[in-house]
Amino acid sequence: MKSLIQKSKNSFTYLNISDVNKNVIATQYAVRGAVPAKSQEIAEELQLIKAGKLDKSYPFDEIIQCNIGNPQIFDQPPISFNRQVLAGVLDGSLVKQGVFKNKDVVNRIEFYREHIAGNVGAYSASPGFKFGQQSVSDFIKRRDGAKQGPDTKHITLLGGASEGVNLVLSALISHGKDGVMIPIPQYPLYSALIQYYGGSQVNYYLNEQDNWSTSINSLKNAQISAGDVGVKPKILVVINPGNPTGAVLTRENIEDMIKFAYDNKIIIIADEVYQENVYTDKSKFYSFRKIVTEMPEPYNKTELVSLHSTSKGIIGECGLRGGYMELHNLNPEVEAQIDKIKTVGLCSNTIGQLTTDLMCNHPRVNAEYSDETVEQYNNEVKELFGGLKERAQLINKYLNKMDNVQAQEQQGAMYAFPRIELSKKAQEAAQKQGMAPDLFYCMEVLLNTGIVLVPGSGFGQEPGTFHFRTTNLVRPAEKLQQSMQLFTKFNNEFHKKYA
Amino acid sequence: MKSLIQKSKNSFTYLNISDVNKNVIATQYAVRGAVPAKSQEIAEELQLIKAGKLDKSYPFDEIIQCNIGNPQIFDQPPISFNRQVLAGVLDGSLVKQGVFKNKDVVNRIEFYREHIAGNVGAYSASPGFKFGQQSVSDFIKRRDGAKQGPDTKHITLLGGASEGVNLVLSALISHGKDGVMIPIPQYPLYSALIQYYGGSQVNYYLNEQDNWSTSINSLKNAQISAGDVGVKPKILVVINPGNPTGAVLTRENIEDMIKFAYDNKIIIIADEVYQENVYTDKSKFYSFRKIVTEMPEPYNKTELVSLHSTSKGIIGECGLRGGYMELHNLNPEVEAQIDKIKTVGLCSNTIGQLTTDLMCNHPRVNAEYSDETVEQYNNEVKELFGGLKERAQLINKYLNKMDNVQAQEQQGAMYAFPRIELSKKAQEAAQKQGMAPDLFYCMEVLLNTGIVLVPGSGFGQEPGTFHFRTTNLVRPAEKLQQSMQLFTKFNNEFHKKYA
Repeated sequence: MKSLIQKSKNSFTYLNISDVNKNVIATQYAVRGAVPAKSQEIAEELQLIKAGKLDKSYPFDEIIQCNIGNPQIFDQPPISFNRQVLAGVLDGSLVKQGVFKNKDVVNRIEFYREHIAGNVGAYSASPGFKFGQQSVSDFIKRRDGAKQGPDTKHITLLGGASEGVNLVLSALISHGKDGVMIPIPQYPLYSALIQYYGGSQVNYYLNEQDNWSTSINSLKNAQISAGDVGVKPKILVVINPGNPTGAVLTRENIEDMIKFAYDNKIIIIADEVYQENVYTDKSKFYSFRKIVTEMPEPYNKTELVSLHSTSKGIIGECGLRGGYMELHNLNPEVEAQIDKIKTVGLCSNTIGQLTTDLMCNHPRVNAEYSDETVEQYNNEVKELFGGLKERAQLINKYLNKMDNVQAQEQQGAMYAFPRIELSKKAQEAAQKQGMAPDLFYCMEVLLNTGIVLVPGSGFGQEPGTFHFRTTNLVRPAEKLQQSMQLFTKFNNEFHKKYA
Repeated sequence: MKSLIQKSKNSFTYLNISDVNKNVIATQYAVRGAVPAKSQEIAEELQLIKAGKLDKSYPFDEIIQCNIGNPQIFDQPPISFNRQVLAGVLDGSLVKQGVFKNKDVVNRIEFYREHIAGNVGAYSASPGFKFGQQSVSDFIKRRDGAKQGPDTKHITLLGGASEGVNLVLSALISHGKDGVMIPIPQYPLYSALIQYYGGSQVNYYLNEQDNWSTSINSLKNAQISAGDVGVKPKILVVINPGNPTGAVLTRENIEDMIKFAYDNKIIIIADEVYQENVYTDKSKFYSFRKIVTEMPEPYNKTELVSLHSTSKGIIGECGLRGGYMELHNLNPEVEAQIDKIKTVGLCSNTIGQLTTDLMCNHPRVNAEYSDETVEQYNNEVKELFGGLKERAQLINKYLNKMDNVQAQEQQGAMYAFPRIELSKKAQEAAQKQGMAPDLFYCMEVLLNTGIVLVPGSGFGQEPGTFHFRTTNLVRPAEKLQQSMQLFTKFNNEFHKKYA
């Protein structure tokens, strides 16, 4: 009946699918793809079932969203200093009423109210609040142990790092022979936007068996293959720590990639939104900016776009949409074009901008904060970080005990990307339903456990191999354990069924 | 010296302007163009001058930003109910502390905290919070006196209305022969994005001497001219109330435009962000949605995108970036593509979404609010609206007393778009400086008064005519009067100088 109505409605419309831009139609974004869409349908049904309005049942009573790096969906608490400040900025009467006992909170609110022209309700300058750009510059200086931070004119405050990728790709993709090198597996924002802007995706494969490491040979092979079809790589995307792999690049790795980029006149987009999410002692985060500036001529002239976000790290403020982009060594004329595109959207939301400022200029020793403020802030961060690390290890343990599943150690980020062996029988069953084998597996996991995964095909994988991405965000740990037990049980039955 | 350094820097870079997408280079956005850019430079100099760090002087001590509809930059106060709720949502401890005495504020905070999965720090579903979509639907129903509001699946919460224009144009512009009809003068977001997505701009001229009215003949002429160069109009943009003209369309006007669109298989984008900003008794706002649904077959099947924003209207919450898009009568397959593109950016910022919800579901009689809450809300709105209306009239009076300036009555929106007569001598002076005559005039206004205007060329104007856009936002009224006196004095001197 539903499809009949839609059909009759169609017949009245005059713009149809053939009128839509072909690049838009081809764009795929798996993180919000078929499995999450199905999970949302089920979530709505579960509500109706609970309310006694639907006679249907599922073998679970809750959807567990492991498809997306969204910590606060599992009630990860926000940093209280940040939220108090934001509340005080939005409602100016709170400070006057003496609501905030912490003087550092009051100081920050007053600083913002003094330095923001008008109010957070006013548009800011397009690149964002000046003091926010300065906080980012100071943050980069501290983080990298640099002599000085970047000039604030190279820094733009964003509504999430995705926006930065969008700005840069839209400016630099001129035609279908412009290549964008991306790791495989990759975060599907990249493949989506390359398609959207009509560029060519150039895949470089990560080495799964060596903990998803990046080899320079893989980059060179990708470049050669691209050249064979007339594609010239112009942009090299690096995600460090890796999404979905969780891999952390070594300093040597980064140096090699910078040399490769410079020698081939390629600009680097360094997606470093997980820079604070490093969980193993033997791994250490180095920013591309730090390494570029410390390399000898001419490699210190490598062109670089660095991205960071408020959504990840420890604070996990996804919904507030903050982040920054920093441009290094770009031709000023090119930079001006990227900045111009940013002005068309006027400015990023001011609460997101302040969240970026709070992330970069946080309570710490050696700044003007009371010991209590610093201690409370550090304790909150420590607890959040400890939880992320503990759960990363827990998940790895569970995954590697599951039948036909093999997971690399999660060095960083918020994800595991384990491999699954799917039997011929399972692959045939998938084909019958018109699904890729890993999509079929993830759909079965959803229908039987309520757990939402993203199939590896959404991120890219070596042909013939199958994976899925899950997160280390389900909390508390007991809940994660329960869900992993449920998952294990289903997985093992699945493989028995299709043995 | 500075240019030398930049040159030497250039020589090291490998991506240059020829590597940038040509459509990006061609994109122009006057609202943040040359005059505002210069004003920002001056603002920074003024700060240094005040601090005794720069030996320079200007004949004014403050920049007055009339280039942009940004009410809170002039300290227009936000609606207190809204800001209290947002503060309480961001800092969950405030309600527990009993900070908010107003029970309606507490109720709304608790509603949000119950209905938001996780917290405002979590990503929402891509189209936005379900309850927010419902509030928009109910708002449309009330506003239009409709039997029912739209299905929530057709509503998307946005980070500002600009985002909606972006989504729709990116999906529907397939190639250079796809035409987008825009009024002249128009809001330059449209010309910018048409260029950006490589479509063809099809101008229909508004009738200045009839208070910037829209005639169907003007649409037909535009369509014929487009056809002459092989361009087929696919989208008709209507801005009502008009930006920059302030004109409000009559019901008959709207009906004619709908017929024109349907007969020619054109989808309408109705930019109705100023729907609450109507200042004259003889004008009344009708939404395109209302008229489409009330028209007889087949015109009630006209395809329509409606846009609204939290940035304008009475609340003027520009910085929080909220708004919505509602799709009506679209082919579901086309709609699915637009929705898909929205998912690539994950979701709009949650504070902006809540601001949209607060705008659409505001304290009012017949809902569950106390009399005090409704009275306070109504009083605040009344005062803000009264101020906007008073200043619209005041500006008109001043403008029409100025030499060589002629302004139409401002029926709505936040702008006046007066015509200026520029002598041959003034035009020659402009040419000497390599500027369009109206840009030259606006630059002189800035350098002599600190007032930031946007030249008419940024919006489009009949060849040989010159205009500028200013806002009715400077407040309080005394400050507006002072600035208009300063402006008048300079204007009259300018015309004497170039007589």
